[in-house]
Amino acid sequence: MGSIADVRGLLVGHAQDEEARTGCTVLFAPGGFACGVDVRGAAPGTRETDLLRSEAMMPRVSAIVLSGGSAYGLAACTGVMRALEARGEGFRTQEAVVPIVCGAVLYDLNVGRADVRPDEEMGARALAAATDAPCFGRVGAGTGATVGKLVPGASARRSGIGSSSVALPGGGVVAAMVAVNACGDVYDPETGACLACGEKDGRPVRARDALRLSGGLLGQNTTIGVVATDVKLTKTECNRLATVAHDGYALAIRPTHTVSDGDTLFAVSLGEKECGPMELQAGAVEAVWRAILDAVRRGGEEGAQC
Amino acid sequence: MGSIADVRGLLVGHAQDEEARTGCTVLFAPGGFACGVDVRGAAPGTRETDLLRSEAMMPRVSAIVLSGGSAYGLAACTGVMRALEARGEGFRTQEAVVPIVCGAVLYDLNVGRADVRPDEEMGARALAAATDAPCFGRVGAGTGATVGKLVPGASARRSGIGSSSVALPGGGVVAAMVAVNACGDVYDPETGACLACGEKDGRPVRARDALRLSGGLLGQNTTIGVVATDVKLTKTECNRLATVAHDGYALAIRPTHTVSDGDTLFAVSLGEKECGPMELQAGAVEAVWRAILDAVRRGGEEGAQC
Repeated sequence: MGSIADVRGLLVGHAQDEEARTGCTVLFAPGGFACGVDVRGAAPGTRETDLLRSEAMMPRVSAIVLSGGSAYGLAACTGVMRALEARGEGFRTQEAVVPIVCGAVLYDLNVGRADVRPDEEMGARALAAATDAPCFGRVGAGTGATVGKLVPGASARRSGIGSSSVALPGGGVVAAMVAVNACGDVYDPETGACLACGEKDGRPVRARDALRLSGGLLGQNTTIGVVATDVKLTKTECNRLATVAHDGYALAIRPTHTVSDGDTLFAVSLGEKECGPMELQAGAVEAVWRAILDAVRRGGEEGAQC
Repeated sequence: MGSIADVRGLLVGHAQDEEARTGCTVLFAPGGFACGVDVRGAAPGTRETDLLRSEAMMPRVSAIVLSGGSAYGLAACTGVMRALEARGEGFRTQEAVVPIVCGAVLYDLNVGRADVRPDEEMGARALAAATDAPCFGRVGAGTGATVGKLVPGASARRSGIGSSSVALPGGGVVAAMVAVNACGDVYDPETGACLACGEKDGRPVRARDALRLSGGLLGQNTTIGVVATDVKLTKTECNRLATVAHDGYALAIRPTHTVSDGDTLFAVSLGEKECGPMELQAGAVEAVWRAILDAVRRGGEEGAQC
């Protein structure tokens, strides 16, 4: 299936606290990359997303942090910034280098320990672990991720962080990496099979019916991730790619983009390949839903999947 | 299945030119309704959508016009405005009443006649025909709509305008009406069946492969519509509903929201019912994809389906 590391130059690092069931994941490339974002959830936790607006100045981003710990987890970005400053990575002002580290978080305080969250040290540790051959599953931002929370009384099952890549005409690739902490059902859009549906009395319950069972009182329902490509894109084109790639969430997670979601998707371009926007965007949607399925499958297994 | 007319107070009127294969559809309620919008396509044709921003002043909208004719079709809004002015419907200033008529268009100049487009007269005619028992299919904004345009050499098949409604807990309803002019495949998300897929040499071709066959040179790929409910919503909540309801496009149309799409979805609230946002939004997504399937099914039949 491939992973986001198929985009040459991108490095992925995870750090986590197994007992506290939380962690963070850093996506990094020396010299940075073009980046856009679409924050579609109505309850997001983010950092350095305003500068990603198409009309904003900043041309490149140093790193992206996906983190557990709810809004507290944004502190991991600080640790990544300090480590990148030491490496001389970032935007150069007259007085200093300022690493641009964008972040988004998910809520995992409901599992493990609520008083331990990804912090500066964990962010720096994730960056130090960055590699072009990353593992996925119950690691990094996926450490505390769970799915199947819609049906009252049903126990949530573990999810994780997953990845996939799709080959493009012209020799390029588009890939995705997502940490799936969804309340909603997770479906394979090609087969219609439900990979993580709620159950009641041993029978599957559709998400919409489960919304009624639960009285609409949902807790945490957030999928955060990155779509990345080696096709050369402007910042504006990255923003557009992030917007369209959210259709991958809609295809695999039902419901998604709800009032209690922090659903956020960054889009990153690093490379000089060429591809028409139609093929690129269709590939990105597929990469995203495949990464969601990967997160649920790998998160069902013990340990990191390499 | 029901239709958007299940939202009490909403009236739908169509007018069309059968030979020119174009038309327009008006959604109207005396006294107006709360309204939001999400313009998600990258190539939209719209009118009076800026005033729908949550922070903009205008509290109510008089009517929504969905139209063929590409950007020319926005003229139909003028005809609706004049007719509503004569009825005294609209926003009252010291000097006049100003009907607020929001519009979105699709490109149907590729079928029938390219030099005949919905105009002021046709807009007024559609408003005059407004009824609480509307027909759907090859009428109004759906008159020139086609699907299955991705595979070169395959003939486009007719689509149309469709509708559906979904009952909500609490006694309310959420409904949708969409004119489907999609290049992409149209799928039933419950069964995975393709209702309007391209074919080559008698075998179905997946949209992503067809993108390669066609070299990414797509023409017109626009789905415009309205989601409506009798649940009481603020303008801000309508905007949120429009955003989430686009997931119905993602579930049924692949690809959608592309660079050559004018995909636009209005959200309308008219009533005093209550419903949690989770149930409402999940119902809206379902109403939208069911309306898309309805448009493709009814558009496959001759004449209006009442």
